[in-house]
Amino acid sequence: MSNFGFPHLRVVNPYDAGFREARSAVGASALLASAKECKTVAEAVADCTLVVGTTAVRHRELQHPLRRLEYGARLIRKQLGSGRVALLFGSEKFGLSNAALSHCHWLMRIPTCEGNISMNLGQAVAVCLYELIRDGKAARQTEKVKCATAAEYERITTTLLEAMRASGYLDRRPIADVEERMRRLVRRLNLPARDAIVWLGILRQIVWKLRSEKPRGTEAAG
Amino acid sequence: MSNFGFPHLRVVNPYDAGFREARSAVGASALLASAKECKTVAEAVADCTLVVGTTAVRHRELQHPLRRLEYGARLIRKQLGSGRVALLFGSEKFGLSNAALSHCHWLMRIPTCEGNISMNLGQAVAVCLYELIRDGKAARQTEKVKCATAAEYERITTTLLEAMRASGYLDRRPIADVEERMRRLVRRLNLPARDAIVWLGILRQIVWKLRSEKPRGTEAAG
Repeated sequence: MSNFGFPHLRVVNPYDAGFREARSAVGASALLASAKECKTVAEAVADCTLVVGTTAVRHRELQHPLRRLEYGARLIRKQLGSGRVALLFGSEKFGLSNAALSHCHWLMRIPTCEGNISMNLGQAVAVCLYELIRDGKAARQTEKVKCATAAEYERITTTLLEAMRASGYLDRRPIADVEERMRRLVRRLNLPARDAIVWLGILRQIVWKLRSEKPRGTEAAG
Repeated sequence: MSNFGFPHLRVVNPYDAGFREARSAVGASALLASAKECKTVAEAVADCTLVVGTTAVRHRELQHPLRRLEYGARLIRKQLGSGRVALLFGSEKFGLSNAALSHCHWLMRIPTCEGNISMNLGQAVAVCLYELIRDGKAARQTEKVKCATAAEYERITTTLLEAMRASGYLDRRPIADVEERMRRLVRRLNLPARDAIVWLGILRQIVWKLRSEKPRGTEAAG
């Protein structure tokens, strides 16, 4: 609830000792500490304009319309514009009682596999609340790593060409339009800015070594 | 994992005693029993064509592109057409190590609130796998309760009119085109089939009572 920004927990008729202990425990969240304890479902949902029950059940004759989470969440978001909505969860073992279900306008189910429809309560809550806050439209954006600039690409290209020349690569395998080809080759790397710095460092070191090797090689030859 | 149909769990370097115990426990799921134990992340993801890491972190300088779950899941679904995908989760306390992250093609984050970005591991897994299987398009359907038929609506309308007449309602407040008006009124109830039966029963009882009352009333008056 706290991960997805839903601060209002109401607990109906909890096991007293356990609930008091959880609530007063060191490190208990503000959400748990401020949870409202209610005697009945009616009391818990009294100020809500829509009450949605959750269920894993599919094929028994339900008394309510049953909606898949993806669609149900859309209806809930609409309703949230004009009033409070209660999302009702039963105990992990037994789900919601028929009495609790009778307070619901409709029911919602998570699209689980037929082989295992019964979910862990905390996981079911997380999935439902995630669906309520998920943003299908804004989602295309990638929060990108800072990319290398054209200047950085150009420095890499220049240094790569120096390394190719200094290593004798271009003497052995001459390339037509070598600068343009290498420029395109380097651009295709699609480098993050911090990688560009690393690559440039490596290439500069190689060039330095190649150049400092040559005189020494010459000396040795002499 | 089992709720959303993902059967392949690979566990890297688990705490041996705990893992062996969990796995051999009475009631351990088939999924846990068949989980593959790996020595390294490299071994765990070796047959995958895409490795996606999960992280709660947003603002530190990540070495990888970071995508929101909604968009990342779309890319994963595409990739699943042509190869296996690994979804990498770290420990609940420390997340993925930099060494583990270095095996990833990119990272994904669940769109949590700034105030509490760190999720329970099981809940984070549930939310990610739910996003992978959710169906935005098929979601508009409501798995409907069996609705009342036109014949049932008509029987209710007829009986309601009888009750209105028998109660003297129409004598006191004559309604133009009363049959058509009542027919539309009843159709607007949008009744489930089983409710239609209940309403019809109630109305019939009322009509019966109203009719059986009249002679008795007459008797009393006489």
